[in-house]
Amino acid sequence: MAEIKLSPLAPAGFPNLLPVPGVEMGAVYAGFRKRERPDLLMAVLAEGSVAAGCFTRSKAPAAPVDWSRAVLEKSQGKVRAIVTNAGNANAFTGEKGMKAAVKSAEATAKIVGCTTDEVLLASTGVIGVPLNGDLFEKPLARIHAGLSGALWRDAAQAIMTTDTYPKGSCRVTHIDGRTVVISGIAKGSGMIAPDMATMLGFVFTNAALTYNCLQKLLRENTDLSFNSITVDGDTSTNDTVFAAATGVNMGHDPIDDPDDPRLKDFRVKFNEVMVELAQLIVKDGEGATKFVTIDIEGAENDEAAHKIGMSVANSPLVKTAIAGEDANWGRLVAAVGKAGEKAERDKLQIWIGGQHVAMKGAVHPNYSEEQATAHMKTQNIDIRIDVGVADGKARVWTCDLTYDYIRINADYRS
Amino acid sequence: MAEIKLSPLAPAGFPNLLPVPGVEMGAVYAGFRKRERPDLLMAVLAEGSVAAGCFTRSKAPAAPVDWSRAVLEKSQGKVRAIVTNAGNANAFTGEKGMKAAVKSAEATAKIVGCTTDEVLLASTGVIGVPLNGDLFEKPLARIHAGLSGALWRDAAQAIMTTDTYPKGSCRVTHIDGRTVVISGIAKGSGMIAPDMATMLGFVFTNAALTYNCLQKLLRENTDLSFNSITVDGDTSTNDTVFAAATGVNMGHDPIDDPDDPRLKDFRVKFNEVMVELAQLIVKDGEGATKFVTIDIEGAENDEAAHKIGMSVANSPLVKTAIAGEDANWGRLVAAVGKAGEKAERDKLQIWIGGQHVAMKGAVHPNYSEEQATAHMKTQNIDIRIDVGVADGKARVWTCDLTYDYIRINADYRS
Repeated sequence: MAEIKLSPLAPAGFPNLLPVPGVEMGAVYAGFRKRERPDLLMAVLAEGSVAAGCFTRSKAPAAPVDWSRAVLEKSQGKVRAIVTNAGNANAFTGEKGMKAAVKSAEATAKIVGCTTDEVLLASTGVIGVPLNGDLFEKPLARIHAGLSGALWRDAAQAIMTTDTYPKGSCRVTHIDGRTVVISGIAKGSGMIAPDMATMLGFVFTNAALTYNCLQKLLRENTDLSFNSITVDGDTSTNDTVFAAATGVNMGHDPIDDPDDPRLKDFRVKFNEVMVELAQLIVKDGEGATKFVTIDIEGAENDEAAHKIGMSVANSPLVKTAIAGEDANWGRLVAAVGKAGEKAERDKLQIWIGGQHVAMKGAVHPNYSEEQATAHMKTQNIDIRIDVGVADGKARVWTCDLTYDYIRINADYRS
Repeated sequence: MAEIKLSPLAPAGFPNLLPVPGVEMGAVYAGFRKRERPDLLMAVLAEGSVAAGCFTRSKAPAAPVDWSRAVLEKSQGKVRAIVTNAGNANAFTGEKGMKAAVKSAEATAKIVGCTTDEVLLASTGVIGVPLNGDLFEKPLARIHAGLSGALWRDAAQAIMTTDTYPKGSCRVTHIDGRTVVISGIAKGSGMIAPDMATMLGFVFTNAALTYNCLQKLLRENTDLSFNSITVDGDTSTNDTVFAAATGVNMGHDPIDDPDDPRLKDFRVKFNEVMVELAQLIVKDGEGATKFVTIDIEGAENDEAAHKIGMSVANSPLVKTAIAGEDANWGRLVAAVGKAGEKAERDKLQIWIGGQHVAMKGAVHPNYSEEQATAHMKTQNIDIRIDVGVADGKARVWTCDLTYDYIRINADYRS
């Protein structure tokens, strides 16, 4: 197995995540991983909580994804526990996979004192290896005995696979004069097998929201965060984002309308948490040495802009040019062109690190390669492209594609 | 500039391409490249010839692509010359780009004695650098003075950019008792800037076909060949495939129906030439050490199968696993899943090197990792996936993703 070094883009440390009223958690080693380090997380939500979910678009989703989708539909978001294991993705495990998922939900329901329809599941790790459903009950009982609202770092570490650091984000806001905490954790760093570095993101808040409202906010912000990042363009069988809202300490009925003015600042902060978590995943991209922000403007609509942005962000040629600190705007043009969305070649404009490098379909007369190259040598690369069609815009994030990406992925099992 | 070594997958040598009655050609150094080696190709077609074209789907196509699309529409395939330069793609060059294209067509028309509407153009090379349209006339006159039907190798070399070897393919067949030659050349090896290694493919035959018939055959076979390969998933601004049919020595009216029984063997051979050229491009993939054939079966339809195949073929995780000689079928599952096409997870079957490695949504009980790994150590990797939905099938080709891909693309301009 290739040596895993801390990403050069890693933050200074794990941030201070505040407890969320109504959320308790714990993590232990249950035996899913080979190495003895916590691999099982349970978060328990106060009665009355709701949860929402967004899942992988993979047509071959893992059993826990099927399970959690069904739970949310059946319970309409009435959820009491989220259980996640790392080390085994329970993906492509046939009928046995669903049986193991059911077993883990049954164990959780028994310990927490709820129904299995109130248990959300997520798994990450090796695929194609049967998950032992009997491994959950005892460790879950141990977690339950030591639940606490302050174990965010343990929680973030328990869901890591090839991540080189735990990922967390926290914001505080107010709704109707009451303090609301938003704390979230995430994992993911490209998608590597046998540890399919599935993207997982769990965001918790004590806001009082209906399932309908939370699901809408989660969907919208997942598109603006986890669906706007890419390390290698590969989608896992297990990608899962959950949001849970406990309503604890709020003293008002759950808010149903996402546009309710009381949610104005909450929405900003909720978005910030999700974007920060998504960015932390990019910064832990396998072999990443550069963090790249790509702004697309002037597209036919926001969706087209997003598609163009992801085309640029996923282009191996763009990503290797960035690794080589090469302000190769020709590759940007090509990546815009291949996105399949409308772009006016003769109105296309490109900025790299704020410098206007191309306009009217050709290189800018004042283009300074020296200045562009100086920007490419920094750690945070900014690319802005106006495709000259209409007003659609999007922002996406990616990292460079380096020797180390190949090393990690080609040598992983050798 | 990174050193360019001959691809380890290169064929033993350039094949023997037979002259095509009605086709003459020549190549010289015109000054588009920095290094003095032939960079301008002209093929002259006998009067009465027709040509067809398939072009990049890029929304930011180069000027010669716009030119040639318009020519074919206007002349309905009546073409007398194909002119191609290497070293400058004439892409993203604004209005100047089209002016240079027009100039090159005018020079050609003057020398060949035809109208500009009978001149097809293609360019490959640096993008964003204005092309000097005055550089064509004198070298084209020199080519014209030495035209020959036997300069296939020179022609194939003149269109190379980062290719490590010239690419050609030839077949002989009969139509109505007359001998028909099909000779084709191609270039491409990933897409790298400043040499955007555009894919170019030119196929010539003396079959007597109408424009309509040739265009249909070219479209169909482009999908089965050049559109079924990938090195890095990037599409160039300049990708162009031309086919020309001279009708010389045929003694019958041009055939208009692609399903005409007289074309039965011709179609097989035409396909073989295009597939062989496409495979030669994959085998020259940047940094490639393995040639990978991916068969998809059981998809909803052939188009869905193709999309799934390309998803697998483009997955960096699949390609790095192959580079690492790792029979990592989990990554195949993930790549199938992310294609967005119907796949029955619980019916999915996978074969690697003929070995049945997965069935019924789980690993095959007799799976031998040793046997799979032995296959991965060979140079030609065979992957077969049945997605268990219906009867759609497709075959695509790719190569592995190695350190050398990064080296070539990240260090190119440094």
